Amino acid sequence: MQDLLDKFKAGETRGLARLITLLENEDPSHEKLLQELFHRTGRAYVTGFTGSPGAGKSSLVDQVVKTLRAEEQTVGIIAVDPTSPFTGGALLGDRIRMQEHALDKGVFIRSMGTRGSLGGLAKTTKDVVKAMDAFGFDRVIIETVGVGQAELDIMHVADTTVVVLTPGAGDAIQTIKAGIMEIADVFAVNKCDLPGADKIAAEVAIMLDQQCQHDKWRPPVVQVSCLTGQGIAELAEAIKKHRVHLEEKNILAPRRRERIRKETLEIATHKWRQKVFNQLELPGRVNELLDKVARKEMDPYAAAYEILGHVTTADGRTK
Amino acid sequence: MQDLLDKFKAGETRGLARLITLLENEDPSHEKLLQELFHRTGRAYVTGFTGSPGAGKSSLVDQVVKTLRAEEQTVGIIAVDPTSPFTGGALLGDRIRMQEHALDKGVFIRSMGTRGSLGGLAKTTKDVVKAMDAFGFDRVIIETVGVGQAELDIMHVADTTVVVLTPGAGDAIQTIKAGIMEIADVFAVNKCDLPGADKIAAEVAIMLDQQCQHDKWRPPVVQVSCLTGQGIAELAEAIKKHRVHLEEKNILAPRRRERIRKETLEIATHKWRQKVFNQLELPGRVNELLDKVARKEMDPYAAAYEILGHVTTADGRTK
Repeated sequence: MQDLLDKFKAGETRGLARLITLLENEDPSHEKLLQELFHRTGRAYVTGFTGSPGAGKSSLVDQVVKTLRAEEQTVGIIAVDPTSPFTGGALLGDRIRMQEHALDKGVFIRSMGTRGSLGGLAKTTKDVVKAMDAFGFDRVIIETVGVGQAELDIMHVADTTVVVLTPGAGDAIQTIKAGIMEIADVFAVNKCDLPGADKIAAEVAIMLDQQCQHDKWRPPVVQVSCLTGQGIAELAEAIKKHRVHLEEKNILAPRRRERIRKETLEIATHKWRQKVFNQLELPGRVNELLDKVARKEMDPYAAAYEILGHVTTADGRTK
Repeated sequence: MQDLLDKFKAGETRGLARLITLLENEDPSHEKLLQELFHRTGRAYVTGFTGSPGAGKSSLVDQVVKTLRAEEQTVGIIAVDPTSPFTGGALLGDRIRMQEHALDKGVFIRSMGTRGSLGGLAKTTKDVVKAMDAFGFDRVIIETVGVGQAELDIMHVADTTVVVLTPGAGDAIQTIKAGIMEIADVFAVNKCDLPGADKIAAEVAIMLDQQCQHDKWRPPVVQVSCLTGQGIAELAEAIKKHRVHLEEKNILAPRRRERIRKETLEIATHKWRQKVFNQLELPGRVNELLDKVARKEMDPYAAAYEILGHVTTADGRTK
């Protein structure tokens, strides 16, 4: 492990790649690795891109990365693809993308599927963000399909979240249903060379004007096209403006601190669960209680309270 | 509360409706209510219907309900609509549906949004299933949009899960990506009066033949049309066959017991978290630890382990 960490700290990309694999697989060393990384984190600015499949997130991210590279900022990209365990594997497209950036040391792309992320997609993605942050990238970009709780959870790690829409039937409505409207700091109406782009941009703007309070950040709506390059500079500028807003209003630092606090509680909860599950391995009291509930001799709440007391006491004694 | 329970036990629908509201709002009484209900649960057969928005789940469920009503089975329906808190409220369509069944005492429909389900959509939905089960419905049907972890979690409460597909571009592919293919016991290709239904049915069948092991249940693929009524009887029959399979192979009862065990552990974990969060209210040690992490004076894992020990000890003492 020390060898790996040395390579990582020396800025070797292969060290980063191997470390991420260990995090994904929840290798026994992953906790120690995260502990080692922790003090190096907090430098990178994290941007999330979310939107329906086919919204063109990848192409849009590639364009934004170009503007960042022109400013000599280094970028780590995490493409989250909740691929089914039924099919497994990352999409071919991502491999092509990786080749495109292969010669640029300032860009690192990692595709993630649910396969191998034992701790849950959101937890693993957050850990990978930390690894990229600690590695020294100025920016970390996360790309996810904007559906489901796991994706929403992932987005909570982003400082700025870009919701990508496209002209098309019901797209705005679906976005609202999926609950990602609330997490948008910037809206990008992609493929604005297609008909209907003005309409959807206007719809979103009206919705925002109805909902946003005067003193709050009002997400800008930017029309972009990866084909013509229209709006890419404006999108990059909108992200920058949001960052400045968060910094000037003193929102960024407290928010990040709050996230770390929450995450620590998550870890504690996870550890507590592991403790309970370990007790299940033994023909212990917890197991007996669960059997009682399964046989309907006891209700789940009564059993839960007993488990709570039991694990607590057992632990208090061994301490 | 006793008054409410009396009405509920007497089979008054209004008692059921009010009880569900208390569960949804996590009213202080909800735990006691669930404890009271527990011994009455385990009778209803639970079927889940999941599929993309616009797949026609509601119409399909209505048709299936008709066949069940013809057999004099009573049905409770839970329509889960993860509406954004941005917009709130249930869809008009569900209200129309409720009016349609308003005169039939054997059918009860409840629409659920994320609004008001404080304990998480999956937890609340499971609680509502229990309420309907305890109320005495022969069948409980859950309808959800098939995207995201919360929806997958909800489906884990179903004995038989029907995945609803429609002829249309990329539908099958999207279904696979969302990870709901694995939870399907029956496939319904809805709107089979539209072109492309044969194609998607064949695609799914090929995929199933590749993946399914010989000794396992091979999900049937049924083409249905709510317009012409085609396939509805076959669909109802396929659900029945799956139930018989689960019962004959002695899968149903052990699976239900395992679910109750898991749920009990979930409750215990939830209670443990509440305990930790309660300690946060005080200017206590847990809070100090979290602040240390936020100031980067300590890493999250070290703090988590201390919290674990602290909550445990503190509790051990007060016991």
